[in-house]
Amino acid sequence: MLKLYGFAVSNYYNMVKMALLEKGVPFEEVPFFAAQTPEALAISPRGKVPVLGVEQGFVNETSVILQYIEDTQPGTRLLPVDPFERAQVLALAKEIELYIELPARACYPEAFFGMSVPDVIKEKAKAELIQGISSLGRHGKFAPYVAGETFTVADIFFLYSVSLACAVGQKVFELDLLAEWPAAKALLKQLEQTPHAQKIAADKDAAMPQFLAWISSKK
Amino acid sequence: MLKLYGFAVSNYYNMVKMALLEKGVPFEEVPFFAAQTPEALAISPRGKVPVLGVEQGFVNETSVILQYIEDTQPGTRLLPVDPFERAQVLALAKEIELYIELPARACYPEAFFGMSVPDVIKEKAKAELIQGISSLGRHGKFAPYVAGETFTVADIFFLYSVSLACAVGQKVFELDLLAEWPAAKALLKQLEQTPHAQKIAADKDAAMPQFLAWISSKK
Repeated sequence: MLKLYGFAVSNYYNMVKMALLEKGVPFEEVPFFAAQTPEALAISPRGKVPVLGVEQGFVNETSVILQYIEDTQPGTRLLPVDPFERAQVLALAKEIELYIELPARACYPEAFFGMSVPDVIKEKAKAELIQGISSLGRHGKFAPYVAGETFTVADIFFLYSVSLACAVGQKVFELDLLAEWPAAKALLKQLEQTPHAQKIAADKDAAMPQFLAWISSKK
Repeated sequence: MLKLYGFAVSNYYNMVKMALLEKGVPFEEVPFFAAQTPEALAISPRGKVPVLGVEQGFVNETSVILQYIEDTQPGTRLLPVDPFERAQVLALAKEIELYIELPARACYPEAFFGMSVPDVIKEKAKAELIQGISSLGRHGKFAPYVAGETFTVADIFFLYSVSLACAVGQKVFELDLLAEWPAAKALLKQLEQTPHAQKIAADKDAAMPQFLAWISSKK
């Protein structure tokens, strides 16, 4: 059985978990925290979460794991078969990761963990975030899903990155990133209400106290 | 015929160019600079380089373009067929991009364009770069290629990201990132000497004056 290494508070972990739940693929959750210890680095070369454990070894990097799952597992398709359509979905997911997730992530310590982030990093992140959201507005279809009529991995990135980016926007910049974009707001709400998203959110809530204690121990 | 939008100084552009040359796929180079103008944003949602123009439209994001080319074009394979092996190559390429290219890129203005980068950003980039190189050391095989016996897209990312990261290491941090890693140094040298890399480097040298004038005009 596939093993999903990570922890339920990680949004990247939850992207893979969502894909596995949507496809109906059985998997085992293996508690694993991001770390630079020899044990963690033997599983993940950069000590990151999530990792997929498969028969031949470990698969790292969320976007790669999602493609690996698509290429090897049965169930609902989460990527188009046509190469051009597939490339659009993969590009949308990549654009969300590079231009929304990464700048928002630079502000996570201040938004979520009571730490402070240097102003120069916040200013850079804010400018990038605004451009990232605009980019998604140009490329995304939101008809009703990010890439068009069907739910794809682009929606998984959208759900788990854009929601946190919006929280960063509000908490750190007092900015509603989706203020002028009702279709994106509506999709976010719709995705959050699906049974799998609800289950993942409940697991996240249950895991939060242990995670916050771990973060505190690292401060 | 495929159209490659971008400019010969961009290392991401050169990754796609290398893949097309290695596969022997004919393509037309279309001069295109990264910009936030309506014309540029109609081709690339985030105004980035490179973009691949195909019959149905535009494909963005280097890693996605490389997969699209692999999925649609004939010629030398640059990704394994086996899903697990393919995932390893894609993860290596992603790890190089996220953990080596991106922190190095944060320092490009100071390393290459006579601008200065805030210390707090440089310190973060330096720590990430060192961890990124270590990560590649753990995951890469270098036997002799990054992912093993054959040249893949992981080597393309290695050639065009790690070479610039090394230049950043030397210019900004007085640090030889590959000091204790002769196999990586040897592979870099070997890849730089291939005929396609030599052609790409000559095109880059020829385009450099115009590029530097463009950068100056934006300061």
